[in-house]
Amino acid sequence: MSTSEIKIQHLGVAVSSIDDALIFWRDGLGLELKEIEVVEEQGVRVAVLPIGESRLELLEATGAETPVGRFLSRRGPGLHHLSVEVDDINAKIAELKGRGVRLIDEQPRVGAGGALIAFIHPSSTGGVLIELTQKDSDS
Amino acid sequence: MSTSEIKIQHLGVAVSSIDDALIFWRDGLGLELKEIEVVEEQGVRVAVLPIGESRLELLEATGAETPVGRFLSRRGPGLHHLSVEVDDINAKIAELKGRGVRLIDEQPRVGAGGALIAFIHPSSTGGVLIELTQKDSDS
Repeated sequence: MSTSEIKIQHLGVAVSSIDDALIFWRDGLGLELKEIEVVEEQGVRVAVLPIGESRLELLEATGAETPVGRFLSRRGPGLHHLSVEVDDINAKIAELKGRGVRLIDEQPRVGAGGALIAFIHPSSTGGVLIELTQKDSDS
Repeated sequence: MSTSEIKIQHLGVAVSSIDDALIFWRDGLGLELKEIEVVEEQGVRVAVLPIGESRLELLEATGAETPVGRFLSRRGPGLHHLSVEVDDINAKIAELKGRGVRLIDEQPRVGAGGALIAFIHPSSTGGVLIELTQKDSDS
């Protein structure tokens, strides 16, 4: 039973190589690779692996001067961001702004797969890069 | 619908202070604080906040010379580990060992809440500290 209207939509993991990472996540751990998508405007290749009601997203930079490329240079591969699905992204953004939370996106924008998303700045979350994702009314 | 027999059991976030972190995660994001537990042998206070079928665990070190204390010194607060729930932890450990995956715990041990757990070394996962958790047969 779900005990929260908010769920983990996905967990983003920065990887040097999706092919190499799949050796652990798919072949070892046993997750299924659902698809690989290129998000040109973010400079990232994304491998999607469902895990329960959530997804694991392996993020491979398409170049050094991309958000994931810079993360890899600075911190190395590993956990990159947490995406949480909310019922009403506009209401959540308004609420967070009212509390003084610093947002990277003050208005929702269209992310991978067409969902409305907005990033919260890690300085307001205790160091975690969080992406809000609008719940898909079809799912 | 769940598309995987493996799910995210919890996501561990290293925090400087649980009290401060709750200002964002509970009051801002809207998660419920279920409990705070001290795990003496790991030197950590753990605040548990359900999120969908998973949980968020805010990890506050009880001292500098603890796993979370050393993580905070080295990397600062942020995403710390991913716990994945598996049906049969012994089978999964055997399978991973057979594939040459490096385990921190080659045998399951009892973790917080009494569950059997085993950590996988980040060197085998692309930089992510992963905890396997045996599925509770009651849940």
